[in-house]
Amino acid sequence: MRALVCHAPLDLRLDALDAEVLGPQQLRVRVAFGGICGSDLHYFQHGGFGTVRLKEPMVLGHEVSGIVEAVGAEVTGVRAGQRIAISPSRPCGACRFCQQGLHNHCMDMRFYGSAMRFPHIQGAFRETLVIEAAQAHCVADDLPLSEAALAEPLSVGLHAIARAGSVFGKQVLVTGCGPIGALLIAGLRRAGAARIVAADIAELPLACAMKMGADEVVNFSSDPDGLKPYAAEKGQFDVMFEASGSEKALVAGLDVVAPRGVIVTVGLGGNVSLPLNTLVAKEIDLRGTFRFHQEFAVAVAFLNGRLIDGRPVVTDIVAFDQATHAFKLAGDKSQSMKVQIAFGDQAA
Amino acid sequence: MRALVCHAPLDLRLDALDAEVLGPQQLRVRVAFGGICGSDLHYFQHGGFGTVRLKEPMVLGHEVSGIVEAVGAEVTGVRAGQRIAISPSRPCGACRFCQQGLHNHCMDMRFYGSAMRFPHIQGAFRETLVIEAAQAHCVADDLPLSEAALAEPLSVGLHAIARAGSVFGKQVLVTGCGPIGALLIAGLRRAGAARIVAADIAELPLACAMKMGADEVVNFSSDPDGLKPYAAEKGQFDVMFEASGSEKALVAGLDVVAPRGVIVTVGLGGNVSLPLNTLVAKEIDLRGTFRFHQEFAVAVAFLNGRLIDGRPVVTDIVAFDQATHAFKLAGDKSQSMKVQIAFGDQAA
Amino acid sequence: MRALVCHAPLDLRLDALDAEVLGPQQLRVRVAFGGICGSDLHYFQHGGFGTVRLKEPMVLGHEVSGIVEAVGAEVTGVRAGQRIAISPSRPCGACRFCQQGLHNHCMDMRFYGSAMRFPHIQGAFRETLVIEAAQAHCVADDLPLSEAALAEPLSVGLHAIARAGSVFGKQVLVTGCGPIGALLIAGLRRAGAARIVAADIAELPLACAMKMGADEVVNFSSDPDGLKPYAAEKGQFDVMFEASGSEKALVAGLDVVAPRGVIVTVGLGGNVSLPLNTLVAKEIDLRGTFRFHQEFAVAVAFLNGRLIDGRPVVTDIVAFDQATHAFKLAGDKSQSMKVQIAFGDQAA
Amino acid sequence: MRALVCHAPLDLRLDALDAEVLGPQQLRVRVAFGGICGSDLHYFQHGGFGTVRLKEPMVLGHEVSGIVEAVGAEVTGVRAGQRIAISPSRPCGACRFCQQGLHNHCMDMRFYGSAMRFPHIQGAFRETLVIEAAQAHCVADDLPLSEAALAEPLSVGLHAIARAGSVFGKQVLVTGCGPIGALLIAGLRRAGAARIVAADIAELPLACAMKMGADEVVNFSSDPDGLKPYAAEKGQFDVMFEASGSEKALVAGLDVVAPRGVIVTVGLGGNVSLPLNTLVAKEIDLRGTFRFHQEFAVAVAFLNGRLIDGRPVVTDIVAFDQATHAFKLAGDKSQSMKVQIAFGDQAA
Repeated sequence: MRALVCHAPLDLRLDALDAEVLGPQQLRVRVAFGGICGSDLHYFQHGGFGTVRLKEPMVLGHEVSGIVEAVGAEVTGVRAGQRIAISPSRPCGACRFCQQGLHNHCMDMRFYGSAMRFPHIQGAFRETLVIEAAQAHCVADDLPLSEAALAEPLSVGLHAIARAGSVFGKQVLVTGCGPIGALLIAGLRRAGAARIVAADIAELPLACAMKMGADEVVNFSSDPDGLKPYAAEKGQFDVMFEASGSEKALVAGLDVVAPRGVIVTVGLGGNVSLPLNTLVAKEIDLRGTFRFHQEFAVAVAFLNGRLIDGRPVVTDIVAFDQATHAFKLAGDKSQSMKVQIAFGDQAA
Repeated sequence: MRALVCHAPLDLRLDALDAEVLGPQQLRVRVAFGGICGSDLHYFQHGGFGTVRLKEPMVLGHEVSGIVEAVGAEVTGVRAGQRIAISPSRPCGACRFCQQGLHNHCMDMRFYGSAMRFPHIQGAFRETLVIEAAQAHCVADDLPLSEAALAEPLSVGLHAIARAGSVFGKQVLVTGCGPIGALLIAGLRRAGAARIVAADIAELPLACAMKMGADEVVNFSSDPDGLKPYAAEKGQFDVMFEASGSEKALVAGLDVVAPRGVIVTVGLGGNVSLPLNTLVAKEIDLRGTFRFHQEFAVAVAFLNGRLIDGRPVVTDIVAFDQATHAFKLAGDKSQSMKVQIAFGDQAA
Repeated sequence: MRALVCHAPLDLRLDALDAEVLGPQQLRVRVAFGGICGSDLHYFQHGGFGTVRLKEPMVLGHEVSGIVEAVGAEVTGVRAGQRIAISPSRPCGACRFCQQGLHNHCMDMRFYGSAMRFPHIQGAFRETLVIEAAQAHCVADDLPLSEAALAEPLSVGLHAIARAGSVFGKQVLVTGCGPIGALLIAGLRRAGAARIVAADIAELPLACAMKMGADEVVNFSSDPDGLKPYAAEKGQFDVMFEASGSEKALVAGLDVVAPRGVIVTVGLGGNVSLPLNTLVAKEIDLRGTFRFHQEFAVAVAFLNGRLIDGRPVVTDIVAFDQATHAFKLAGDKSQSMKVQIAFGDQAA
Repeated sequence: MRALVCHAPLDLRLDALDAEVLGPQQLRVRVAFGGICGSDLHYFQHGGFGTVRLKEPMVLGHEVSGIVEAVGAEVTGVRAGQRIAISPSRPCGACRFCQQGLHNHCMDMRFYGSAMRFPHIQGAFRETLVIEAAQAHCVADDLPLSEAALAEPLSVGLHAIARAGSVFGKQVLVTGCGPIGALLIAGLRRAGAARIVAADIAELPLACAMKMGADEVVNFSSDPDGLKPYAAEKGQFDVMFEASGSEKALVAGLDVVAPRGVIVTVGLGGNVSLPLNTLVAKEIDLRGTFRFHQEFAVAVAFLNGRLIDGRPVVTDIVAFDQATHAFKLAGDKSQSMKVQIAFGDQAA
């Protein structure tokens, strides 16, 4: 069984790994599609991000779908052949945070393809994968497995929306329309935002944002003052999602978000210089959002029911043995949104 | 009638002003006590703060109590001689924010002693003051008017608590134990915080914090790592109030606040450099708080019912004609907490 | 100018009324369509409901759209010819509740066509109507005015959803699929409910519920135990909306709503006998919902943007001079959902 | 080792039981005091309540404190001789509700002295008791163990307050001032209620309510219309707690609770007839509350820190071998609030 292992920056290999043993409450899955996420890209390009660094070779990947190949002895309700989306999140269930329902803050989280811990948690970009039965979420017969592999990044967006409180009937700004921002926009439309303005510095993501449901777009490159009109009367947006990781976008948002408005920062970034006076005088809430938990099931339900259509986000599907090409493509924001790897010859 | 007018930095004068006309829904009040607030001090010391600058002479002050002297023709329920605390907040009631119940964000706010608008809104440090009847809050017979003048800074603390959501049964950190921080601590104890840790860089405010209800204090000067133990397990505090205006305190807080915790920034400050990664990964809420509205009535109720005792906060009461001395005293944090001016010869 | 006046039960007349004077901040509107609401029907059939009784002749109606005919001298931003949906809600803006943002609880509400006060508030089923400019909500060019007249009952549904907290990603039950229930279902789908089960005792509303977005329907008549499977594990629904006014439906809901679930009672009803033990042991929230306020603008935005399609709800449009027939039709639940009256010859 | 076993209504016996085995993560505790709760009383008087009935002999009791006698091999941080309050709640930690943080709704709850399941969960009224280490909460050196045994009913009150959302600065009504109501009042005062009105039909509980912090009392027996003034302007209370189990009190509350107000029903009761119209038109929230979970630790912290003083609630302490007398006393509301049993000769 082969897996996609990152040995060092720009050193990606298809290594042969021993097959994992199937436990009684587990499933063996033939992986179908895997989306390349920003963190995968950071490992590939730079060997990590911030203080999170590769200290040993690591299988990448956590946005995967597949087909059940074998079913553990004690598993009920799933059969071989079942098409599934796979949650990469494996919290312990027992720690202080899991017992509060905050599983994304688990003290002992094992999230696929993460170098936050050592030994690293190996990822899911591999031909076969043994998972806990609870990680499997059944996919509708008519939903392509490529789209099912969007459940993970969509979950990130849905959790960000949950962090905002409610967006129903509200005026919403999204800055940064990469794959996460674009899926977030679809989530916002589904969550009943009354108006969605999307901003970015490039045309490709803005065009995608419109397809995903934005009402209006602002291109900061060609129209740096495009948000100015929204600063009227102390600000017009009830909620803002900052998904670009840009300090400039965050600071610009403080002027167009209304008093008591909420800004959710989706992306990881470094230190930002924040005008605290504005945040205080307008009583703005700046909220972090990190991964997801119960949102994965909701994401699959929305995709299954065609209540969210993720197709505009997938710009390329690349064969497993062209993985390095796939990662280079994913790193080129001018032509790619989500790049997926096809691990077998399954029809999408 | 004399008023305390700031003409320029360090130039404070007792100017004679014409008496104001009493309207039918108004009260004329003989001012008793007035507390010197941080913003008063900024006008006195520096002519303002940030972009807010004195552009004309301005009567200072907004933390005042007094005795009703004359009652407008249409006012009911108040009689001359009534002892009152006076809310300095006069929202319009009609704008978009007032109609949402967010009066502290009123588009046409007239808050005493503020240079945010021009012409400036003249303040309440004067011998007599004409107010709207709705600004008057009756004071219990046995509550000294000096303590009644704490209703305003206490309201700021109560509103900050409201912004936190709920602190009932929670672990709370307060950084910065000046008058606002100290009254906030009393409010937290009253609001049912299970444990209150107070931090500052000086002994006087920490000693006051203990009297106001803190369970434990940390002196950052003598014990820079005093909060370290609270960083265990991703952080031990549910809620933090940052009332020192120090970037260092805010950043330190990010390490000791638990995932999904709330940090309320009470003080105005300039730009701060914030490690956004921590805020995101722990899903912390950073919330501004600004002034108050309905909390003024609650503050008076707490003081009247002796449910909050503000006495430890008042370190000096200075006669009206010694006002410049009072302001210098208020600026010396090593020996003063709240300094009040006595405008007449009323017994405290 | 003629108006539809209810003089007594079953006594509906097209009376000639004097034209109203146009004030400077008002608009004169040629009414296009008006939907018959349950309360209109109660006045027509029984002269009122509960303690609310007709004590004088009253113009009925509050679900109306129209075309601006004349514009008051001080009104800006609206021109004659503008097609609008009209909010029937006229709160005072000044009372205790308006100042809290709870305008639907205004102490001095003047809601069209309501006998709650005396003199009654005359309604909007008339050829021309003078309104405050703030009541007018512009309608998209391609939205028929018949559909625009659904903004009011849709607002009721949106407000009910707001009362539930959030339904995003949740399992939801709706009992009672008349016009309000059906529009509520469309609102729930738009608000991101993950699954919507609709229940009623008749086929027509259930068929409509499916068109409005329900995932599944239960007909209590043919399948009295249709909700039983949802009682598993203490209950499967996160939120329930009771829009049938039936005690039986409400009580049945207590068994299928999960612990900490919310039941919103949309319909007015009389006394119900409630098993308090179940509500207590499962910590269920039973919440009333009444009318709406800011939701009217959102309803128009959803209709304008085709984010909600109300067409399946309108079963009949009847000419003004056939009003009694329209009311009889509206009272026949076996063949009618929403019946609208066309007040002129405007194209829909 | 002897335990207090209810064999049938009015048939209470001190049966000898085998000592329990001490597991590695457990503690053996010598029980000091145990408070008689309403449910204990129902088993004693009627053999149960509602559908919950004794089907086998059951040890009663769940409000207990004690002294650690032996410590399991793997337990750290607790030593023999430690004085503790004991949480009677033992959720599974693994079910759907525990994983959401809703442990009080655990699918596999083992709550002391409860006939809700069969075999019944045996109670804590016994000389020695083996508990999980996590059930033990350390008691301050100067807190008598009699008062520590109030942690359980106090927790019920604290959880009810949490269910209300926030009571900070609010106007609150409590109907029913038995032990739960009285401790709830102390909790409300600690949680920052601005005003607390307490109502009951008897003098003893009302006198206790005043001692626990109520501002005002209403005796429904001598003053049936005592709440009338609070009905002004659609109602004056923000929050009501119904702790009497009386339908009349609940219905009366609907008139004096303000629009958007919250009514928390603390007591278990049977069917009540509720005027749904009022609940709907005022958009009242009627919320159940059931037991507690994390509030137990908070209750102990409040008692330890003397932030809540439970002494006025304890009217009698009766020796173990007079248990039947204790139960009869507890059933006489005219002379008893909380009756406790002393299981040994420990000084209180």
